[in-house]
Amino acid sequence: MSAKKNFYSDNVSGAAPEILAALVATNAGDTTPYGADPATERLQARFGALFETEVEVFPVGTGTAANGLCTAIVSAPYGAVYVSDSAHVHDNECGGAEFWSGGNARTIPVPGSDGKMSAAELARMVDAALARPAEVPPRAVSITQGTEASTVYTLAEVRAIVEVARARRLWVHLDGARLANAVARLGSTPAEVTWKAGVDLLSFGATKNGALTADAIVFFNRELAQSMRYRRRRGGHLFSKMRFLSAQLEAYITDDLWLRNARHANLMARRVRDGLAAIPGVRFHGPTEINFILVVLPQPIWDGLVAEGYSFSRRGAPSEGIIRIVCAFDTTKEDVDELVATAKRCATALNANV
Amino acid sequence: MSAKKNFYSDNVSGAAPEILAALVATNAGDTTPYGADPATERLQARFGALFETEVEVFPVGTGTAANGLCTAIVSAPYGAVYVSDSAHVHDNECGGAEFWSGGNARTIPVPGSDGKMSAAELARMVDAALARPAEVPPRAVSITQGTEASTVYTLAEVRAIVEVARARRLWVHLDGARLANAVARLGSTPAEVTWKAGVDLLSFGATKNGALTADAIVFFNRELAQSMRYRRRRGGHLFSKMRFLSAQLEAYITDDLWLRNARHANLMARRVRDGLAAIPGVRFHGPTEINFILVVLPQPIWDGLVAEGYSFSRRGAPSEGIIRIVCAFDTTKEDVDELVATAKRCATALNANV
Amino acid sequence: MSAKKNFYSDNVSGAAPEILAALVATNAGDTTPYGADPATERLQARFGALFETEVEVFPVGTGTAANGLCTAIVSAPYGAVYVSDSAHVHDNECGGAEFWSGGNARTIPVPGSDGKMSAAELARMVDAALARPAEVPPRAVSITQGTEASTVYTLAEVRAIVEVARARRLWVHLDGARLANAVARLGSTPAEVTWKAGVDLLSFGATKNGALTADAIVFFNRELAQSMRYRRRRGGHLFSKMRFLSAQLEAYITDDLWLRNARHANLMARRVRDGLAAIPGVRFHGPTEINFILVVLPQPIWDGLVAEGYSFSRRGAPSEGIIRIVCAFDTTKEDVDELVATAKRCATALNANV
Amino acid sequence: MSAKKNFYSDNVSGAAPEILAALVATNAGDTTPYGADPATERLQARFGALFETEVEVFPVGTGTAANGLCTAIVSAPYGAVYVSDSAHVHDNECGGAEFWSGGNARTIPVPGSDGKMSAAELARMVDAALARPAEVPPRAVSITQGTEASTVYTLAEVRAIVEVARARRLWVHLDGARLANAVARLGSTPAEVTWKAGVDLLSFGATKNGALTADAIVFFNRELAQSMRYRRRRGGHLFSKMRFLSAQLEAYITDDLWLRNARHANLMARRVRDGLAAIPGVRFHGPTEINFILVVLPQPIWDGLVAEGYSFSRRGAPSEGIIRIVCAFDTTKEDVDELVATAKRCATALNANV
Repeated sequence: MSAKKNFYSDNVSGAAPEILAALVATNAGDTTPYGADPATERLQARFGALFETEVEVFPVGTGTAANGLCTAIVSAPYGAVYVSDSAHVHDNECGGAEFWSGGNARTIPVPGSDGKMSAAELARMVDAALARPAEVPPRAVSITQGTEASTVYTLAEVRAIVEVARARRLWVHLDGARLANAVARLGSTPAEVTWKAGVDLLSFGATKNGALTADAIVFFNRELAQSMRYRRRRGGHLFSKMRFLSAQLEAYITDDLWLRNARHANLMARRVRDGLAAIPGVRFHGPTEINFILVVLPQPIWDGLVAEGYSFSRRGAPSEGIIRIVCAFDTTKEDVDELVATAKRCATALNANV
Repeated sequence: MSAKKNFYSDNVSGAAPEILAALVATNAGDTTPYGADPATERLQARFGALFETEVEVFPVGTGTAANGLCTAIVSAPYGAVYVSDSAHVHDNECGGAEFWSGGNARTIPVPGSDGKMSAAELARMVDAALARPAEVPPRAVSITQGTEASTVYTLAEVRAIVEVARARRLWVHLDGARLANAVARLGSTPAEVTWKAGVDLLSFGATKNGALTADAIVFFNRELAQSMRYRRRRGGHLFSKMRFLSAQLEAYITDDLWLRNARHANLMARRVRDGLAAIPGVRFHGPTEINFILVVLPQPIWDGLVAEGYSFSRRGAPSEGIIRIVCAFDTTKEDVDELVATAKRCATALNANV
Repeated sequence: MSAKKNFYSDNVSGAAPEILAALVATNAGDTTPYGADPATERLQARFGALFETEVEVFPVGTGTAANGLCTAIVSAPYGAVYVSDSAHVHDNECGGAEFWSGGNARTIPVPGSDGKMSAAELARMVDAALARPAEVPPRAVSITQGTEASTVYTLAEVRAIVEVARARRLWVHLDGARLANAVARLGSTPAEVTWKAGVDLLSFGATKNGALTADAIVFFNRELAQSMRYRRRRGGHLFSKMRFLSAQLEAYITDDLWLRNARHANLMARRVRDGLAAIPGVRFHGPTEINFILVVLPQPIWDGLVAEGYSFSRRGAPSEGIIRIVCAFDTTKEDVDELVATAKRCATALNANV
Repeated sequence: MSAKKNFYSDNVSGAAPEILAALVATNAGDTTPYGADPATERLQARFGALFETEVEVFPVGTGTAANGLCTAIVSAPYGAVYVSDSAHVHDNECGGAEFWSGGNARTIPVPGSDGKMSAAELARMVDAALARPAEVPPRAVSITQGTEASTVYTLAEVRAIVEVARARRLWVHLDGARLANAVARLGSTPAEVTWKAGVDLLSFGATKNGALTADAIVFFNRELAQSMRYRRRRGGHLFSKMRFLSAQLEAYITDDLWLRNARHANLMARRVRDGLAAIPGVRFHGPTEINFILVVLPQPIWDGLVAEGYSFSRRGAPSEGIIRIVCAFDTTKEDVDELVATAKRCATALNANV
């Protein structure tokens, strides 16, 4: 088989074999629909064990749905949710927060650096809003862990934000589309990264890290879950054959598959970075703490890679020339080495041409 | 393997083997995410061929999402959607129409019989609403084909409704969660049942008839599709690994699988009805034109079947005692015969007891 | 001055002189805008005294806004509000409940008679909904007092509904667009008609009974008011020159103006009814307990009155021929006697023609 | 009468005598409710004459309602409305755009200077959004004329923005809460400032400039008005006694009252500025083109004025110390001179103290 050349997103990959196998295995026999099946019922205990506390877990089809539902819940009856200025829920969900909340939520970007919001800036902005009755009232903060900038919040950073939030009676949501990569990076337990740090509810991502079409919402603060079963149904995420989502999620957390996949993807991103770092003219845009790198490549290297069939996505304004290279659970060392070698060849040709 | 005893819903079944195989086959290799993959791109032509006209097709995860999106679109900028008084979109989606439209849509039940709205009553109600400026303005009609009462609208009945709608400038939506069963019953072409009869857009169901987690929206009136790509994304139904939905839908319509499955399920329902009809005291509630029967069973038969592990759902008010028995693509003759035989045994025991 | 001939609605009248005078008087001098003015601040105590309990009162511009805001609040986070099947909030506000709640509320009509919902039917419908997870969850009941059928709920009837509501944890809203007429009719105190009977929050109407453009929301359950200040502002009902609304409301409840106006209007409606009752062929549609009558007039009488310049509104289906004749605070005995005399003349002419 | 000391807002004033008189005059007699009265019907022609073109005009109670309704309409079916970064609709309406659109609209602030958005920045931002399918799709631009920074867009500046908008198929809304002040300043006709410059629809403010409680929406592009009558009703801004709003608006534009009032207020603001400019340490924050000034006062002057009973509002972050001093139609030369003299006394005392 030829090397992987599609580094556009973690989503270009199919499903992990363990998860596909679980899906196939769950097909046999009849079950009660709409989530009253054994696989879904098992999830409660399985996620409880994973997070070392009692939780309520609701499978949904996409991360956008998970974020939208969480945003609608934490902004109720209505209000503002503060997010980092590169947050997916603000920039990449086409107004999902407004939609899921029926116009009740507004997402407000908080400046920061390396994709992380600044707790001090959060405090300043929330306080200013609280002082003005004409402002959308602050209700919640949403932290993206790991971030869209390939960084992770340290536990101290999360706690600093939670402290700001708690003092102002804001709920704390964690957008964990890449939670596995963040947990793997931090070396902390899932509990430490979430409820022990003060997180109330979590968008638990699986699709980017080996599932087919399954993410979940995990409530640590179970009072917030009261309206979920209705909201999920009307939003079209109560799948009649729910077992097919639950089976994916169960396999995903079994035998640490989620962390093994994430560790591997993180490692591969590190390997890409280390490989490219040796090439003159390559400039990295921020750290690489999880499974992708942001990098500015000399034009001929970019041209050469594209000519070879490689595919990446762009980030930021076109003039910045930032490229995102994403590794997934199924990216191999050979894939990475081939990518780096190709880039080097393009660089050499470049220098030879000079 | 023991006989199927779960007749609660078509959704208790897993996936058809052809569809599961297609899902597994699509797993290999990388693709562009968010629907720019080959499987999704093929769908346009495949559905165009199926319906003998150019269409736009959008896979979504559930029928509730399909109905919600369609309702939001046809009610825009806002207004009323007239539905039959047993319509799923009104009764079973927890306010999905209001949700997807951001409070812009209201569903209004139109009386009728056998699960079908009356065209005359529709005309009367819409005209009354048009005469009153304080009413939610009528915008669309939504026809459920096949109905929640195991009936199908004849083409003439659909055309009568469409005529009422067109004369009042209403859009026409078809909720086809069980379209396959209706097409199979009618013996007409998919085109005849939809756009040739005046349907503008369609919720195309697959999950109830052999898919895992895939339905679709099909636009015959392609102008109505303009906002879809945004609406679907914000609603969390633009799956990043869309190919897994598209592969299901492609397999579903390949080699007439959808119609073969539906014909079989319809036939099995007929067989249940014929079998139960011979039992004294069994009363049917309306016709059985598609894949389920509505029936009132003498209490001892119900008790006996439940004691044997059978499972059904109830319909209507508890006092009516109506039971729904649903057959699926994978219900076998043996399953049906075993069900009927068990019911007869219970009936005999009953008579013996008298 | 010639007699009043416009009996179309209570809204055809201008403002009561006391209210207009208060409006003019409040014009002098500067005040803090957006409700921090003395007139608005006084309202809290004035309404507290009127209702013999601590309340929160919020002036708004229209009854539709009052109902919409109340519905949004009692349905939060979202759910169904049960109303009588002739309720203004369901039929006459163009989808106001859905709008104000951002798609979170659905109004569900409960059958009854004489414009009043049946407590037993309410219980049955709510229980049925609670038993079905796919239903919009019941959250509140909204009682119209006096009704659109010129009736009032007795205190016992209100309490019966409240009992059903409380047992199912529903909030109780009173739509009091014609509260004054109902209180005048019942001869009870405002407290007895509202919070003492279990009402949580009230749309307090003034415009139909002598104000220019002012209604209010009164919270007996003050926890429900928490989101009001934000909701009212975003809904465009936080008037910058709020004093002009507050001055109307203050004058309205001063020296029992509201009850005097209502008693008079009720009396005039009674006088119309008594006068028309003597005319052969005149059929009343239900009782006349407040300030309007519903009546079927022989066609020649209707024609004659219209020819004379009289104006009424129609109710129900055109085939029913029901006419509404509304008296207002400024309808005089002479106006009524002239109306009745004209009708009699038309009737005589009719009989003479036979 | 003592001098006016409340410079907090234009809204602290009552109504202009001409407008109050018109309100009182309209009280006599009965009219058809809900806007079918003569005063409201006259408005169409009166506004048509004012703007020298056929328009549709809809009175509403507040500017927030006008902006909310306009935003909902121009964003339909849904999308982004670009506004200046100090726009009232974004910052001061508590999420009104999201509310009125049912979650369909997002307002996006565009940087600029002196309260005006930059056409170049607008083009850049809209183009970036159009290039990303995950973004809320751009639908409209909303220009505030005059601005929250006491400036006005020149006609050339408006046209530059319109050009950017038209090239990208965006609607153009004008928030004219202070349109009168802007027109007075520009010395152009109302037509030139609006539709001749490419404006599709207008929030026409009156309350800040002499009305009690009336603003209006004016449609130049009358196709956009199609859903207005429904939207206004459900939003609670179809006043039953509409004549009381229409009478205000009619008086407002009669005999150039609106421009006379605005010219006077602008002039008084100029007089305040000129007066304060002579005081050492006073720093102006931007130009004073309409009826208020933004200024940083030495602390003792601020303290002294407050001690004398003066009242202003603050703008920007507390650390900036910016004060807004607003003149209204009823601010007199004497009021201004007294204010300036008092400030000077405080300044002298200050210097004396040093």
